[in-house]
Amino acid sequence: MAEDEYPQKAFGWAARDTSGFLSPFKFSRRENNDDDVTVKVLYCGVCHSDLHTVKNEWGFTMYPIVPGHEIVGVVTKTGKNVEKFKIGDRVGVGVIVGSCKTCEICQQDLENYCPKMVFTYNSISAEGVKTQGGYSDVMVVDQHYVLRFPDTLPADAGAPLLCAGITVYSPMKYYGMTEPGKHLGVVGLGGLGHIAVKFGKAFGLKVTVISTSLKKEAEAINKLGADSFLISTDPTAMKAAMGTMDYIIDTVSAVHSLAPLLGLLKLNGKLVTVGLPNKPLELPIFPLCLGRKLVGGSDIGGVKETQEMLDFCAKHNITSDIELIHMDYINTAMERLAKSDVRYRFVIDVANSLLQQ
Amino acid sequence: MAEDEYPQKAFGWAARDTSGFLSPFKFSRRENNDDDVTVKVLYCGVCHSDLHTVKNEWGFTMYPIVPGHEIVGVVTKTGKNVEKFKIGDRVGVGVIVGSCKTCEICQQDLENYCPKMVFTYNSISAEGVKTQGGYSDVMVVDQHYVLRFPDTLPADAGAPLLCAGITVYSPMKYYGMTEPGKHLGVVGLGGLGHIAVKFGKAFGLKVTVISTSLKKEAEAINKLGADSFLISTDPTAMKAAMGTMDYIIDTVSAVHSLAPLLGLLKLNGKLVTVGLPNKPLELPIFPLCLGRKLVGGSDIGGVKETQEMLDFCAKHNITSDIELIHMDYINTAMERLAKSDVRYRFVIDVANSLLQQ
Repeated sequence: MAEDEYPQKAFGWAARDTSGFLSPFKFSRRENNDDDVTVKVLYCGVCHSDLHTVKNEWGFTMYPIVPGHEIVGVVTKTGKNVEKFKIGDRVGVGVIVGSCKTCEICQQDLENYCPKMVFTYNSISAEGVKTQGGYSDVMVVDQHYVLRFPDTLPADAGAPLLCAGITVYSPMKYYGMTEPGKHLGVVGLGGLGHIAVKFGKAFGLKVTVISTSLKKEAEAINKLGADSFLISTDPTAMKAAMGTMDYIIDTVSAVHSLAPLLGLLKLNGKLVTVGLPNKPLELPIFPLCLGRKLVGGSDIGGVKETQEMLDFCAKHNITSDIELIHMDYINTAMERLAKSDVRYRFVIDVANSLLQQ
Repeated sequence: MAEDEYPQKAFGWAARDTSGFLSPFKFSRRENNDDDVTVKVLYCGVCHSDLHTVKNEWGFTMYPIVPGHEIVGVVTKTGKNVEKFKIGDRVGVGVIVGSCKTCEICQQDLENYCPKMVFTYNSISAEGVKTQGGYSDVMVVDQHYVLRFPDTLPADAGAPLLCAGITVYSPMKYYGMTEPGKHLGVVGLGGLGHIAVKFGKAFGLKVTVISTSLKKEAEAINKLGADSFLISTDPTAMKAAMGTMDYIIDTVSAVHSLAPLLGLLKLNGKLVTVGLPNKPLELPIFPLCLGRKLVGGSDIGGVKETQEMLDFCAKHNITSDIELIHMDYINTAMERLAKSDVRYRFVIDVANSLLQQ
């Protein structure tokens, strides 16, 4: 980890303490082993998890920490066992860079749920190395966890698909929320929510954005393609919408009430939470039982499904709406992200702005 | 409703106020119309809903109220359109006696979720008649909601299947909790729970009873056929059982914590609540997402599925464990039920003990 601990020099921006303030940081990456590819980072999305982690809001941050797990780059080295990639290939790296590969869960291509899963940053790899993320010039990753990045997807606006995209795509597939003509509610119009709207339309669903912010209405409908917009703080509108939705994806990470959302669902309706509030939510049981509704969770997706999602996005021209920034804007970007002041994802132009001082 | 308001005289036991005290009550039933069958009641189970209703614990009881919705009897009259039954047939009547029959939900054989569904008691029928239940000598019911009661099922021990049975059978089918070899946890060993254990074994599952009461262990294993018993208040045992279950049926109606139950589930585990606590339960989102688990609800079942369930029970010799009582024991039985002092269902021998004074 230290500058000369491993053979490959690396340079990025790290947070050193719970202030979350990021600044230049020299470190090192492991040698490119037989199964590894080394990736020159081009772009990296700024996920809300990055913000939680640099400020230690989940309580397990190991400083110094280089965040970033929505990474698009170019292969610069390949190990001798690597057949999946060659030098010059455009690739993606998402939220995970390791797992046991042998357990029943890994065998089902659900590496993201493997008990030995290694996160792209703030984890300890099987070799005992602390992982550091994509706010840096170079990554070294086992080829198994590296995605082919489709030629037709833009590298900057496509980067957020590697976390925000798969986080909403995977539950839509798993819980069967893809039947054309059905009605999807998307709660919260941020990085995850705005991509959920696009997936919903690509699957042929009617999509309603459910938000507290009236000012997002025109954009949700005109730009993102949502069919309607529901203000969750408007009791009349919420009452009129009761029992009209088949599915809801809830992307809100703040503690909030599930009762009004369950009320929006039809019989057999499905509510999936992906926002990870850190305190329990109140679940009323009567509406759950009397409407045979379910509340389910989901966490990112496996490698195979992430590749499928990227290919789906390439086919349907789905990308994130982004604000492209330079590395030295990151602290301001984090402040704005904390206030949801971005439409809808910051992406760092790493290759063109990460200059060694 | 009054004694001479409708043409068919009826006699039962009713509660008059929130004391829930039951006493003899003369009333009347509607004429046997073209689609109706009149049923002489033989046996009626004592469901926990009866107790909630006579004491107005759910807040919508219309007094005087004759409870009872686990009814087995014999057909004594048939309307001219009735082809499904003939006089002398043994039949069952469960929780519902009406619905609109025309909506999309009814068309899917889910009458139990129809917005116009009529409960067997404490409801107002489409004709404006208040319904009264099976703690009485006679029922008049639209043939559509009457079940064929299989010859090989005992009428007394089979009666509780009409509510307790379908309440656990339906979610097991809907949520796919029937894969042989999978591990089912049953929370709460009462009327619902003990039948869930029997269904679990009939589906070829490994079944663990999860209970606060150590004294039920021997019976759960030796008599009901459970494979193991887990004391939910024993932290060591709960920890050892973490991540071992595929499904959980939670029959507890008191407010309780879902977190320890979610912890018992494996990846993709399913927790279904059927106990109807009247306050929200706390739902922790992290375990839900990180294990892709779901919490679902379910409420009894439709007519077609209830018939399927009765036939399944006949085939697999599934009945309720009961304590058969006379009508004049009902107030004591209700007191004992409130303390869970019954293994596992009181059934009233209506035909032999409901004597007009």
